[in-house]
Amino acid sequence: MTALPYTALVTLLICLLLFGTAANVGRARGLYGIKAPAVTGHEMFERAYRIQMNTLESAVLVLPTLWLFAGFMSDRGAAVLGTLWLAARIWYAIAYQGNPKKRGTGFGLSMLAFGALGLGALWGVVQVFMQ
Amino acid sequence: MTALPYTALVTLLICLLLFGTAANVGRARGLYGIKAPAVTGHEMFERAYRIQMNTLESAVLVLPTLWLFAGFMSDRGAAVLGTLWLAARIWYAIAYQGNPKKRGTGFGLSMLAFGALGLGALWGVVQVFMQ
Amino acid sequence: MTALPYTALVTLLICLLLFGTAANVGRARGLYGIKAPAVTGHEMFERAYRIQMNTLESAVLVLPTLWLFAGFMSDRGAAVLGTLWLAARIWYAIAYQGNPKKRGTGFGLSMLAFGALGLGALWGVVQVFMQ
Repeated sequence: MTALPYTALVTLLICLLLFGTAANVGRARGLYGIKAPAVTGHEMFERAYRIQMNTLESAVLVLPTLWLFAGFMSDRGAAVLGTLWLAARIWYAIAYQGNPKKRGTGFGLSMLAFGALGLGALWGVVQVFMQ
Repeated sequence: MTALPYTALVTLLICLLLFGTAANVGRARGLYGIKAPAVTGHEMFERAYRIQMNTLESAVLVLPTLWLFAGFMSDRGAAVLGTLWLAARIWYAIAYQGNPKKRGTGFGLSMLAFGALGLGALWGVVQVFMQ
Repeated sequence: MTALPYTALVTLLICLLLFGTAANVGRARGLYGIKAPAVTGHEMFERAYRIQMNTLESAVLVLPTLWLFAGFMSDRGAAVLGTLWLAARIWYAIAYQGNPKKRGTGFGLSMLAFGALGLGALWGVVQVFMQ
């Protein structure tokens, strides 16, 4: 694992993003008076909640793919694509909170980064079988 | 990690399943006119959403267990059990979308595969301590 | 991976906690008559559901951080902090089910354990770059 420090660093930043989207939900609970366990009741709270959940769903896909790319292809390549994914996800979160209709571009860019990680990781794994 | 290529391949397929269940929610948003951030409003959309969430919840459990089984027991064994889990989860998703009452069999089979992964991984870890 | 057996063991226990919070939701479905795909309709069911989701959200953050701490710092240190996180999360789950207002202490303690894992992992990764 110590041989993949760039991917490790990006992983910690992804965890920080997840933490941020979760903290934002907690903040919105107070701001709009949505008491746990409710997760509906105010449009702005629901946006914060959906941003958190969608970021979480994506992270569960991206984290294994990121590490497979790092292990079977390249640590630095994984870190570059992971950083692109991270930037696109920050864009998505900010745009969605302002207007759900504007969440498409950041989402689409994060999907491109994920697709590149997935295809690269697959290529790396297939090469092991072909040796 | 390159020593565990079978588990790597199954992991990419699990990520593909997660992607598929998420894409299905996006499709259902359009089909049944459920605008973000809402996650309720039409039974068929809610089924797609619950399939995605339940698959996600399970994947967060299964992915670490799969890799612990691979690392402490066997790469090919992990891949076989991971493939069984994956097949059971595809069955679950298709059955649930048609009729939530029929989600039990696929769910139960995926739990058996998960249980085997968990017990196997535990056995492998305990053996390290006993050496 | 076999060089990190303590972290492996704690990971299996975290998976068991996730399994327990999910099983508790299934139990609450039966007990309070909430038929899938609904996730609302009874306060006690909604508590069980939020406990599961919040534990899941946290686990997606904690599992990568735990393993980065183990790989870049110490297997036993990661296991100690991971066990603290686990204990705090069990406290959180039990307190929340009884009264959502009492979920704060367990949650806060789990955040301290997570923060220590995150800072330790970051320190370990940074040291690799500084060598």
